[in-house]
Order: sequence, then structure tokens, then C-alpha cells
Amino acid sequence: MLFTVFVKNCSIVFYQRQRGMSKIRKYGTLFTASLSFFSQKNTINTKDFMALPITNLEHLEKNKDDMKTKMELMILRVQADFCKALELEEDCNKFIVDRWTRKEGGGGVTCVMQDGKIFEKAGVNISVVSGNLPPQAVTQMKTRGKQLQGKNLPFFAAGISAVIHPVNPMVPTIHFNYRYFEVQNGDGEVQWWFGGGTDLTPYYLNTADALHFHETLKNACDKHDVKYYPKFKKWCDKYFNIPHRGERRGIGGIFFDDLDSPTQEKCFSFVTDMADAVIPSYVPLVKRHKQAKYTRVEREWQLLRRGRYVEFNLIYDRGTKFGLYTPGARYESILMSLPLHARWEYMNQPAEGTPESELLKVLANPRDWIEGCHCDDEVPDN
Amino acid sequence: MLFTVFVKNCSIVFYQRQRGMSKIRKYGTLFTASLSFFSQKNTINTKDFMALPITNLEHLEKNKDDMKTKMELMILRVQADFCKALELEEDCNKFIVDRWTRKEGGGGVTCVMQDGKIFEKAGVNISVVSGNLPPQAVTQMKTRGKQLQGKNLPFFAAGISAVIHPVNPMVPTIHFNYRYFEVQNGDGEVQWWFGGGTDLTPYYLNTADALHFHETLKNACDKHDVKYYPKFKKWCDKYFNIPHRGERRGIGGIFFDDLDSPTQEKCFSFVTDMADAVIPSYVPLVKRHKQAKYTRVEREWQLLRRGRYVEFNLIYDRGTKFGLYTPGARYESILMSLPLHARWEYMNQPAEGTPESELLKVLANPRDWIEGCHCDDEVPDN
Repeated sequence: MLFTVFVKNCSIVFYQRQRGMSKIRKYGTLFTASLSFFSQKNTINTKDFMALPITNLEHLEKNKDDMKTKMELMILRVQADFCKALELEEDCNKFIVDRWTRKEGGGGVTCVMQDGKIFEKAGVNISVVSGNLPPQAVTQMKTRGKQLQGKNLPFFAAGISAVIHPVNPMVPTIHFNYRYFEVQNGDGEVQWWFGGGTDLTPYYLNTADALHFHETLKNACDKHDVKYYPKFKKWCDKYFNIPHRGERRGIGGIFFDDLDSPTQEKCFSFVTDMADAVIPSYVPLVKRHKQAKYTRVEREWQLLRRGRYVEFNLIYDRGTKFGLYTPGARYESILMSLPLHARWEYMNQPAEGTPESELLKVLANPRDWIEGCHCDDEVPDN
Repeated sequence: MLFTVFVKNCSIVFYQRQRGMSKIRKYGTLFTASLSFFSQKNTINTKDFMALPITNLEHLEKNKDDMKTKMELMILRVQADFCKALELEEDCNKFIVDRWTRKEGGGGVTCVMQDGKIFEKAGVNISVVSGNLPPQAVTQMKTRGKQLQGKNLPFFAAGISAVIHPVNPMVPTIHFNYRYFEVQNGDGEVQWWFGGGTDLTPYYLNTADALHFHETLKNACDKHDVKYYPKFKKWCDKYFNIPHRGERRGIGGIFFDDLDSPTQEKCFSFVTDMADAVIPSYVPLVKRHKQAKYTRVEREWQLLRRGRYVEFNLIYDRGTKFGLYTPGARYESILMSLPLHARWEYMNQPAEGTPESELLKVLANPRDWIEGCHCDDEVPDN
């Protein structure tokens, strides 16, 4: 892959090439082998990434087949893909990149764009951390059905997480998160699983957008298991719930956790495809509405809904709570998900028949966006 | 007290009279008795309040010496005093008043002013609720040292709670809350206690303001017990802490809970005096700064600090969490404490030597505002 560095040297072209490369990869190892003919040494092309990997490059090279390596390189690639795709929409503003390390082990790369023309606040974060799991966290995982023995178990976690809050109230907010977890049990055995999801939070309901978003996710899921989309869609509606208001945070998407079958490789392939489905699910909606006209009332409604987003994230979101209660956590990266502006009004109740009240109806009673695609099975509690 | 209704009929004069009356009350029962000569029927004057009491008037009349009655009437009076004092500062905007009932028992009166010239959002809420304590709440109280037997214990709670977010960044935000709790144990014995506090959240540090605020609270405390202020001041700094940021929400004030000595009457008298100290501690600061000039940068800093306020209230505040997790809770009254606008920036770090960084220093290391007034005793965990 080294030759590309010499041929092209512009981030936009890089991005396009890099997207092309991910297609090329799908043609299998034969093509990759022929590419490696041109580049005998060195193989991990860090030029594609927003920053250097967290793990030492030499270690990554030596452990190419380890899932830890594969996950780290995948999230770094997806981070760069997504940031560059958003920069193309923004036109004038760029992401700032913060590469940070954690004294307990590992670190992350936080990319943030603030006060853009199109994106009011966009955060795309990857983290690769390892260490010993505090007893409290072990207990929490046990209650979720994990068979773990011991109190301070070595763990590894790698994930990508992003929240994009656009300026225009006609462009929805998107959130996605894909993660891989390994814990070494008291007897030395390693347990692993994947988790993640992608979900959309519109301020004004647009059925065509909702359909496009859900269909893109469904198509990506269906390649792996046709049961995935209906189940993970239901799980998503259950997870992103604001019980005190009796409403969902948005119109859902997919959400799953504890995925450890049929094989590690197949799980990784699924998670990779879902992460790669983010751009085609979302960027068309940005293009479609970023220049839409809007009123002050519509902007205020957007800010009010952002207040609800803050309520969900700070009160109920497991990831945020787990993160903030972890000593030494990088709270700036965790709270990057919060909007630049939010608003709380007392007793705001949109009048019946307004677009605002139409949205609320869907948030109170999640809709099956794709006809005939419904899951009757129970999904786990969060 | 009925005669006043006939003599004067203007809310401002009412308010002034009512403040005068509270002084008159202090002269004791002799004067009250002579007043009752003019008004044989002697009823509770609800004209002073923002809304009718929650408890049936006849029941209140019949149980005048019951602490439940005394507390309900006190918080209704303080609510009206405070709302009217703020309306005098606002000049053009008035509080809207929502009297609500709760099907499980009791209710409340929520007074809110929004988008005012001086007050961006001001909420003054009283609630008087009764019912059976859920087992979860009983457990929580047990861990706090209460000797409670049984799972569904009859309880009564009455309290006043207010948060005032002014428009001008030079005017601090104030919060106060005073409450009374009764639980009937499995053996029929009633346990009671008081709790509460008043605390200030400036956006720009003004030492004269801080001194005035703390001195007013100290003077009110000292009338009851000279140990109260230093202990409750320390407790306040411990309670209003945002651990993930390593900073306090504001510059403190007082905070206490589980107050049940020396006598019920003396506790009530203390809590009443502290509630009455809110206006003299705060309104002079509003008068002093409400017309101050400020810049866009100062306004943005204020909104950023309001984001921290939201973080504390939604993640750590026991009252908010307890409220939101209670089925049938009136979330609009609980979340009334949230500002109209808040802002979250990634990695906002004020430059050394700026007024913003001066504030942060005090939030990181709470100051003893009153010289020589320090508490070396441990204060309870929250």
C-alpha cells in the first residue's frame, strides 16, 4: 500500500482512494498479495489515519492476525473515512485532532469540529485501552451474564464513537459506536465480544430520510444474518429511551451488545460492515438538507430536542456513566457527545398537528420503518 | 389576619405587609392573640400565597400545631415572598403559576418565569407529597443511618426548591431547598427530619458578593448554633462537587440533611430563618449587577458554566435522580432547575490570569470566605 503515498498527496484524494481501497480489499487476499509485491516491508499505512495508532506500530505489525490489531486498524480507518466525508460537506472547517494517552494503559484519538458552517459540533473518537478491570466493572459484567472469575481481570477495549450535531434543524443528528472487548478470566481463558450501533435523531420527521437510513442499515445487516436488523432495531428503541419523558431519543437504528457468535471473524466482519454503512446511511441526508431554509422557531425546537439528548446521555447512557465513574477517564472525550447548545423550557408542548408534535408521536411510539420487518422476540435489558 | 385583605389589594403592598407580618410574628403569641380579637374566625390567609395550599384548608385549620401544617404554610409563604421579590427586580415579567396534584397523594405549586429581562429562567417550586415509600427508597434511607423497619412505609414530605438563572453573567445563579420529612416505622413510631441549603453559582468571581452571601447565611445560622455555619458550609462544598471535572458547581453556601435535634420546634425555626435569609443574601446581588455591561465572550462563558450546572444536576444531584426515578414524578418541576440555555465546548481552558481562570481556581479549591471560620470535623458523605 506504500506506493499510494508517493503517487497522491492530498487528503481529499486520499480519502477517495481509501474508500476505493476498502472495496478492493473485498476482492480477497489474491489482490492484496499482488499489491504487497510492490511494497515488501511495511505494510500498515498510517497516512490514512487522523493520527498514529495508539499501539506501537511494530507490535501491530508483528500481531497482524490478532483481533486487537484488526480492530484498532479498522476503527482508525473508519474514523478517518468519516471525518473526511464530513469535511467534504463542511467545505471550510476541518477537524482538530487530539491524540492522547492514558497512564493506566492505551489512549485514543479525539477528532472534533466546532462552530462549523454545516456542523455545529461533530466529535469522532477512537479509544484503545487496556489494564485491569475494577471489581465494580467485573460485577456489572457478571450481572449481564458474563462468566467472570476474579476481581482485577486484565482487559482490552477498542472502540469508535461519534456524535454529529449539525447547524440546520432539517439535518438530523447521528450517533454511532462500535466496540470490541476482551477480558482474561482468572483461569487465563480470554472472553471476547463486540457491541455497537448507529442511530438517528431528527428534529423534524422526514419519512424518506428515515427509510433511507433504516434501509441502509438493514441491507448491511442482511448480508450477515437476516435476523440481525429486526432484533437490533428493537433493541435500539429499547436502549435509547428517556423513561421520565416517555419518549425515545430519536427514531432509532440498530443497537447490540455481547455479540460473540458465530465466529470472531464473522463478528468482526459484521461490525466492520456496519461501521462502513455509516457514511452511506447519513451523508446523503446532510447533502439533501444542509442548505434548507429554517426559522427561529425551528432552531429553538432543535435546541430543545438537544436538551433531551443531554438528558439521555447524562442520566441513562451506560457508556457515559461507566466512563465518568472510571477514575482517570478522559471526560472531555466522553462529553464530546454533548451539543454546543441546548435549551430547556418549562412545559413546552407543541400544538396538535404541528411538525413538532408529529415527531413526538414517533418518539413516543417507535415505528417499524420497513414494512413487514418486525421482531417479536424479547431483547435484553440494557 | 383577615382585615388586611379588606384594607389593601395590591400584590406589591401585600408582599411588603407580608414581610412585615413575619416580623410581627416574632413578638409572640400575645400579639397574635390580640390580632385574633379582630378576626374571630381566624383562618389561614391564602391570599398571600401563589396558589391554594395542597392540603385541604379545613384539615390545615384543624391541625395548626402539626409540623406538617406548619411546614406547608411556611414554604407557601416563602415561595410567595421570593417570587414577589424577584418580580420587583424584573419589573415587566411575572411568574406563571402551576398548581398540580399527584394521584398517589399530595401535589405542588410550580412558579416559573422564562425569558425575562433580568431572569432568563427562574423556578420556585413547593411540593407536599405523601404516600408509601417504595422499598428502594427505604433501603436508601437505611444506608444513610435511618432505623427503618418495613418495606412500604407511610411518609410525608414537604419542601421548597428554587433555582434562579439570570440573564446577565455578572449576576450569580442561586439555588435553595428546604424540606421536612416524616416516615412512619413498622411499629407505628414516626421519624422526622429536616434538610436543605442555599448555594451560589457566580460566573465571575466577586469577592464582595461572596462575602455578603456567606455572611448573611452565617448570621442566620449563628442565631441557632455557632457550629452550624462552618459545618454546613463544608458539607455544601462536599455535596456540590463535579468529580469528573475536579471542580465545585459554585462557591457554596450551606447544605445539611438529617437534622433532628435539639427539638422539632427548634429545627423548624432554624429552617424557617434560613429560608427567610434567601432574599437578603441574594436580591442585593441582583440589584448590584443586573444592569452591568457584558460582552459576548462573557455571555458564552456563562452558558458554558451552565453546562456544568446541567452536568451536576443530571449526573450527581441526589434530589434530581431520586425524583426522576420515582414513578409518577412530575419531571417538569424537577427539571425546572435546568437553565434555558447551556453550552458545551470541547476542551475550553481559560488562559491563566483571566477572570474565567480565577473563578476556576476557587471552584477547584473552595475558599473559607469568612476568616477564622473553618470546620475541622468530618461531614457526612452525600
